[in-house]
Amino acid sequence: MNSSMIRYILGSVLKIEAAFLLLPCLVSLCYQEKVGVIYLAVAAASVLFGVAMTFRKPEDTVFYLKEGCVATALCWIFMSFFGALPFWISGEIPSLVDALFETVSGFTTTGASILEDVEVLSHTALFWRSFTHWIGGMGVLVFLLAIISLSGGSQVNLLRAESPGPSVGKLVPKMKHTARILYLIYFGMTVIEVILLMAGRMPLFDALTTSFGTAGTGGFGIKADSIGGYSPYLQWIVTIFMIAFGVNFNAYYFILFHNVRKALHMEEVRCYLGIILAAIGILLIDTLNIYGNFADALRHSSFQVASIITTTGFSTGDFDLWSQTSKTVLVLLMFIGACAGSTGGGIKVSRFIILVKTIFKELNSYIHPRSIKKITYDDRPIEHEVMRSTNVYFITFVILFTTSVLAISFEGWDLTTNFTAVAATINNIGPGLELVGPSRNFAFFSPFSKFVLIFDMLAGRLELFPLLILFHPAIWTELYAHKSALKRLKGRKLGRDGKTKNKTLRRK
Amino acid sequence: MNSSMIRYILGSVLKIEAAFLLLPCLVSLCYQEKVGVIYLAVAAASVLFGVAMTFRKPEDTVFYLKEGCVATALCWIFMSFFGALPFWISGEIPSLVDALFETVSGFTTTGASILEDVEVLSHTALFWRSFTHWIGGMGVLVFLLAIISLSGGSQVNLLRAESPGPSVGKLVPKMKHTARILYLIYFGMTVIEVILLMAGRMPLFDALTTSFGTAGTGGFGIKADSIGGYSPYLQWIVTIFMIAFGVNFNAYYFILFHNVRKALHMEEVRCYLGIILAAIGILLIDTLNIYGNFADALRHSSFQVASIITTTGFSTGDFDLWSQTSKTVLVLLMFIGACAGSTGGGIKVSRFIILVKTIFKELNSYIHPRSIKKITYDDRPIEHEVMRSTNVYFITFVILFTTSVLAISFEGWDLTTNFTAVAATINNIGPGLELVGPSRNFAFFSPFSKFVLIFDMLAGRLELFPLLILFHPAIWTELYAHKSALKRLKGRKLGRDGKTKNKTLRRK
Repeated sequence: MNSSMIRYILGSVLKIEAAFLLLPCLVSLCYQEKVGVIYLAVAAASVLFGVAMTFRKPEDTVFYLKEGCVATALCWIFMSFFGALPFWISGEIPSLVDALFETVSGFTTTGASILEDVEVLSHTALFWRSFTHWIGGMGVLVFLLAIISLSGGSQVNLLRAESPGPSVGKLVPKMKHTARILYLIYFGMTVIEVILLMAGRMPLFDALTTSFGTAGTGGFGIKADSIGGYSPYLQWIVTIFMIAFGVNFNAYYFILFHNVRKALHMEEVRCYLGIILAAIGILLIDTLNIYGNFADALRHSSFQVASIITTTGFSTGDFDLWSQTSKTVLVLLMFIGACAGSTGGGIKVSRFIILVKTIFKELNSYIHPRSIKKITYDDRPIEHEVMRSTNVYFITFVILFTTSVLAISFEGWDLTTNFTAVAATINNIGPGLELVGPSRNFAFFSPFSKFVLIFDMLAGRLELFPLLILFHPAIWTELYAHKSALKRLKGRKLGRDGKTKNKTLRRK
Repeated sequence: MNSSMIRYILGSVLKIEAAFLLLPCLVSLCYQEKVGVIYLAVAAASVLFGVAMTFRKPEDTVFYLKEGCVATALCWIFMSFFGALPFWISGEIPSLVDALFETVSGFTTTGASILEDVEVLSHTALFWRSFTHWIGGMGVLVFLLAIISLSGGSQVNLLRAESPGPSVGKLVPKMKHTARILYLIYFGMTVIEVILLMAGRMPLFDALTTSFGTAGTGGFGIKADSIGGYSPYLQWIVTIFMIAFGVNFNAYYFILFHNVRKALHMEEVRCYLGIILAAIGILLIDTLNIYGNFADALRHSSFQVASIITTTGFSTGDFDLWSQTSKTVLVLLMFIGACAGSTGGGIKVSRFIILVKTIFKELNSYIHPRSIKKITYDDRPIEHEVMRSTNVYFITFVILFTTSVLAISFEGWDLTTNFTAVAATINNIGPGLELVGPSRNFAFFSPFSKFVLIFDMLAGRLELFPLLILFHPAIWTELYAHKSALKRLKGRKLGRDGKTKNKTLRRK
């Protein structure tokens, strides 16, 4: 286990976070809020830790999948901890667990909140809260890749541990370039949304925070009624951008550098749009009674479908008051989630396509036992390994989900609350139903349940396994073994031929 | 597709059902109920159809997995239809859909009822209702195998399509002997239960129907309060026998013909008993407040855990009134289900053992990517095919489950009702929570939802795929192709060398 490389990556991420923390400081300057000093202090602490951890460059920069996973999981935990400090120190969120919950919810683009009333927060805190969505949206490590250089294999392993969906799409041969292109698309689309929102007379601050929430498919609002108070035009803009940020970003790459037809030919994108249309159709029939006219019903239905399937979690109304059919459709959309390779969470449309095809293959094997026809995806046969890992992912998801529901059920809340609380966090959505409905919050849970939900948010965002292996004893024994091996080598002063030593260590 | 063989099996099953229908006639004689005439008439109709369908023996008796599945699925549908006729004709259940629901619920050992009040039914109807559990418990085809002779491969394919669990345990080399041993154990245990219940002063009629419900892990009661009105001794007897009928029957074979240690060494059995003990522990703490004293709390907790994990569905009290923690534990037990190779439903303990081991294997593959250590089960490595089919089973189960919840959600009942109604039927349990709780029934659902739940009961009992392939178009085109090919051959009068022709047909 290459622990020095993990340390180095953690340090770099802390330095980046310090830079990010300067933005809320700027906001506090504009609004003349004293709380900005705290953000500055945390940024300073963050950069100090970062510099200390990156002071000594690791001798051996190559590392494997397990190190990639451990680094990724620890990065998100470190980022969340430092990100939570300003909320806690400023006293805007008095409990550390709550501050951590809110920040993890931000970075994982969940948008589940423990705040009773967001409108009492300072502008600085509101900005930082929404900005964590934007940072988390594309994955902080993708950002790291875009700006620093790592040797070959490490990049793939980092990206694989963080990126959503069954397989990492490599757009261009060099990972660094891929990461840059993705971030450019992400940045460009956010800017366009801000402009379009401001064109609808939304104030700059609201436009920025709303766009951060949309781009990261997060869902933190700055108003008590989320997006409900804005004009229909603004709601439609948010709807369209939510759907757009839930599309596989490869599609945008195709549109920019190849042609539109190739993007539209992507099986996942077509299926994703198909599900959205079907869900809007069902909800439309259902909400017509509530809203009376077609235009309003269409707007609310489209908004809510887009918000839930992309796992954003904004709301224009309390969908907990809608009919059971609508609620069931929304709960199902929670699990489907957005496309792989987007900023959204959930199980992902591509995984469902593969799962459904697996079932049909099984049925066919009953009828033609000797057939060896392979399942295709985007006109290419799916590799056995992708199918297997998709199956295992789904199984792990369901079992982790059930265990979490059991764990939080000890508090005695009703089944729908527990079920949708876990669904809303593990799929990185935000609001659920009943006690965690869109007009409520997660404050009432005990610290234990909050930790379970924090775990679920991180697990959902990191695609389960990178977080789960942190609990594998072998990880820690290997980390320890590596350190003591290093010490032993140094103690014996055998440290001349660095390369060969590292190779033996690497195999551990 | 060997359609003549399917016809022959269906006919044989109808003849067996006619024989079974004579038992309620006997009951009606004892209680001097006129309704017995209807059962006699249906038995006569059943035997007529049976004889007509078995009149011409099929020339070709060999058939493959797909034919086994189709035959099994159709058998259960035919059995249920004829079994429902007496309820409907006698007017005791006025609606045909309801009568079908009740009978499918009986044969699939579910125990979900549409009856508002069971105590108004005639003794004959009550007997037949409980007796369907006993018939369905071990699988009507296992019974068929025990009494008639089929050529080699056919038996395995029939058994594979019907028997619960990931792999068919062959106890002795000949299928027919295996089936006989299983039925002997089943019959013997039922008799012991009847005797022990009568020793506790339960009337013969109650003892018989209760034992049928326990043996088949069905759960139809003959009283409005299920088992709640009987003495603690009787409740304990039922508890112990419910747990006993949920054990893999291979364990009893080992106990009878080898030694007890081998039975206790079975991983599934130990895990099954461990889950039961853990669940009783949690429920005990929880129900102590409700029942006040330890003995009552232990009895009710043990009874309910045994009833739910074995998917029987009897109740001694309304567990819908228990705390959320208890209800969540019970809902989880619904999905775990009993052991494979028992009469119980659910996903089965052995599948969960394999699924959890799959997850650990995946985690290990992150840490040691080149390791090729195989997962073991009962100290033997699990074959890749078993793992794969377990994964696919689980995925299909979850997706079918979700689709069913969506389908019945259009009626507008609450999420917990819909969720547990599907859970209670697809896992062949009986009662759920809220509107389908143990003191309620399924009568309020629309005919459409009832058909969805009937489908779920059959799908759960037949381990999904044998029922699902009925909806595969290839099955019906092949059936048609086989028939027209036969006709063509007969038309040309080339029918001398029967054997070679059949071989070509068989490959279709």
